[in-house]
Amino acid sequence: MRSETIVAVSTPRGVGGVAVVRLSGPLAKELALQHLSVSTLLPRHSHYARFSVGNSFVDEVLAVWFPSPHSYSGEDMVEFSCHGSLFVQQAIVHALLDGGARLAEPGEFTLRAFLNGKLNLSQAEAVADLIDSATPAQHRLAVSQLRGGYAHKLEELRQRLLDLASLLELELDFSQEDVEFADRTLLRQTLAELDGEVSLLVGSFSLGNALKHGIPVAIVGRPNAGKSSLLNALLNDDRALVSDIPGTTRDTIEESLTLSGITFRFIDTAGLRHSDDVVESMGVERSRKAVAEADVVLYVHDATTPWQTPDLDLSDKQVIYVCNKIDLAPAASVPSPSVGLSSKTGIGLDKLKSSLVDLFSSRLSDHSVHLSNERHYQALLQVRKALEAASQGLAVDLPSDLVAVDLRDALYHLGTITGQVSSDDLLSNIFSRFCIGK
Amino acid sequence: MRSETIVAVSTPRGVGGVAVVRLSGPLAKELALQHLSVSTLLPRHSHYARFSVGNSFVDEVLAVWFPSPHSYSGEDMVEFSCHGSLFVQQAIVHALLDGGARLAEPGEFTLRAFLNGKLNLSQAEAVADLIDSATPAQHRLAVSQLRGGYAHKLEELRQRLLDLASLLELELDFSQEDVEFADRTLLRQTLAELDGEVSLLVGSFSLGNALKHGIPVAIVGRPNAGKSSLLNALLNDDRALVSDIPGTTRDTIEESLTLSGITFRFIDTAGLRHSDDVVESMGVERSRKAVAEADVVLYVHDATTPWQTPDLDLSDKQVIYVCNKIDLAPAASVPSPSVGLSSKTGIGLDKLKSSLVDLFSSRLSDHSVHLSNERHYQALLQVRKALEAASQGLAVDLPSDLVAVDLRDALYHLGTITGQVSSDDLLSNIFSRFCIGK
Repeated sequence: MRSETIVAVSTPRGVGGVAVVRLSGPLAKELALQHLSVSTLLPRHSHYARFSVGNSFVDEVLAVWFPSPHSYSGEDMVEFSCHGSLFVQQAIVHALLDGGARLAEPGEFTLRAFLNGKLNLSQAEAVADLIDSATPAQHRLAVSQLRGGYAHKLEELRQRLLDLASLLELELDFSQEDVEFADRTLLRQTLAELDGEVSLLVGSFSLGNALKHGIPVAIVGRPNAGKSSLLNALLNDDRALVSDIPGTTRDTIEESLTLSGITFRFIDTAGLRHSDDVVESMGVERSRKAVAEADVVLYVHDATTPWQTPDLDLSDKQVIYVCNKIDLAPAASVPSPSVGLSSKTGIGLDKLKSSLVDLFSSRLSDHSVHLSNERHYQALLQVRKALEAASQGLAVDLPSDLVAVDLRDALYHLGTITGQVSSDDLLSNIFSRFCIGK
Repeated sequence: MRSETIVAVSTPRGVGGVAVVRLSGPLAKELALQHLSVSTLLPRHSHYARFSVGNSFVDEVLAVWFPSPHSYSGEDMVEFSCHGSLFVQQAIVHALLDGGARLAEPGEFTLRAFLNGKLNLSQAEAVADLIDSATPAQHRLAVSQLRGGYAHKLEELRQRLLDLASLLELELDFSQEDVEFADRTLLRQTLAELDGEVSLLVGSFSLGNALKHGIPVAIVGRPNAGKSSLLNALLNDDRALVSDIPGTTRDTIEESLTLSGITFRFIDTAGLRHSDDVVESMGVERSRKAVAEADVVLYVHDATTPWQTPDLDLSDKQVIYVCNKIDLAPAASVPSPSVGLSSKTGIGLDKLKSSLVDLFSSRLSDHSVHLSNERHYQALLQVRKALEAASQGLAVDLPSDLVAVDLRDALYHLGTITGQVSSDDLLSNIFSRFCIGK
């Protein structure tokens, strides 16, 4: 496959000042020279040249040749900067296809970079996350993973596990002699330590995943507490239907807002009350579901009414109590800690926003590692399962060969994260979510 | 203004594998080095570097420094190729803004290229046309203009006119002595020749403009001749409402289709007949208007009915007679030349398409010049007016100073096309239609 030369437009789809066409593979330089008005390409030099197909002029371009292995893909590459016209982009790609290149699959430049050892699998996945990043928090997660992040830590874990497994397997060669090369106490300690590290990463997934996709914040409360008005005030938009009639909101409404670089997904819900109305009851059911799935709950209370304790299980949630409509009841007694605000006048909105950000900003220092990749999370769950099986095996003095199987299983799943273990299916699954041209 | 350093994302808006940020002006290199992990930039060398803001890493980029005057704008420029993430694009632009650059206006890089003498005004306008080009015909027009096109011819005309005007004006200095430096016969001949050249360009505008924006093709005929079915068959889509009831189409419907690189704008119209129905009559009125504005008319005839001569003024139109529904009347006598077809079965559609293309392809050789710029067209109309006034002045022996005024007028308008004459208003008008980053 890597004997083929691939080509794609790498810049976003559409019309713009400039577009970049990438060509990678053994024919890259030769194909480029067939179409350029220069007779030679110097390594990494930006050549100004005319790109033609036969006698017909296509565009004035900048062409740069990146000789292997010092290119993004690790192969010989040529990048063309042309005018960002749809016609020109297509004409250049078609000319190179006609010369023997083929259209790159999504992510194929990065796939080749991985296959050529330019980056590991976890880093390759981080490239896709980096491209998708639209907020500082998403960017930080992707960059941390791109620069090695927990891959280094996992590699270290893997190495220690590999040593243990090797010692255990060595015993099998001497199984007649009843020797123990692997000190069982040390083995148990090490497994516990590894399990701790893996659990730490697994535990960070909830926040990492929330940061990547937006932190779910459920807005709940009694009917007519002003939940939809609060959503509208936060978004500064008339997103949700608002009226004085309790029970106006039935479907849950979801909108995202980025505050201080962190994306929150606000979910406005139906007011919580017992109702005989079938549709409203279905709405209330959805509200409870939204709370169950949320990381943060904004419990909205109407300051003009007596305080009511929420009829909800909020035990593992971060809750911010919001005392709404304080413009109508300035002297209302608000249970502490809570934020008093008025969606109508805007008083207290900034306080609420900063309270939300404060919940997360301290956990977002540059040093903390957050797992944000679902695939890695699933693999680490398998690793943890295997480590625990191994520990139990040791506890009941199972034969070394059975324990070794569990260790190999843990090693396998660790290896899938950084790509020491990979299959065509796994790779095509990962790279198909890339954009074309990367 | 050119003392400022400007920055913009030059690639199309959105997310992609790669984005390009351009920086142009005196601070370009210095600003770039503040953020890059390299200590020096070699001219036109593609440096792989980390782009950071303070201690915080933003992205791995390729950075190329183009020293003045060998850059697109003619100024010192640095181009950064970064990952095409929204966050990364913004972060790089913001970092450079914070360092003292300002956001580039639309077309400002090209404006600077013009002001620095890298291209003339007509070429600068061609850059915008090139970027907008989506079909081979549009691309050819833009490239011809970009490579000089009629600007060379206009510059030659201008030079000859300038010589004539100078001779005439020289006579003014000797006005007491009744000398004629400018041979009046030669002057008349030259003016006639110039007028001929300008008229040729003016005459090419209709086709040039049609090629740029699509050639208008009106589909007309009696009610129920199958005009809407023909449109749908051409588009291979159910675009227009179709029924057996005569008078189904009321509003004109317009859709574009590119055939062999030429874009045609098909306008389906209401069937032509006298009607007491007010809405239908309005529709028929629109049909006549569509014919008046079209370059090509497809007159659709229902083969199952007797031939009827169109009740339309088609004198200056290119007409293709279409004999529709030949599947129902295979032996129908079709007036020659015409295309027999069936929208239902698809028979004859390819013949119709190639007939349309044939009308234009012969006039589209690479050597023919087509004026496609509305501004240039308007300026040339003024030039022609001034040339004709000068000719008339000569014919009735007006004093040289009055004839010289007309020649200066012609010179002025010629100068606005290539930019020897320009004003801030004119420039901002031209460049504001550019995309940001070009």
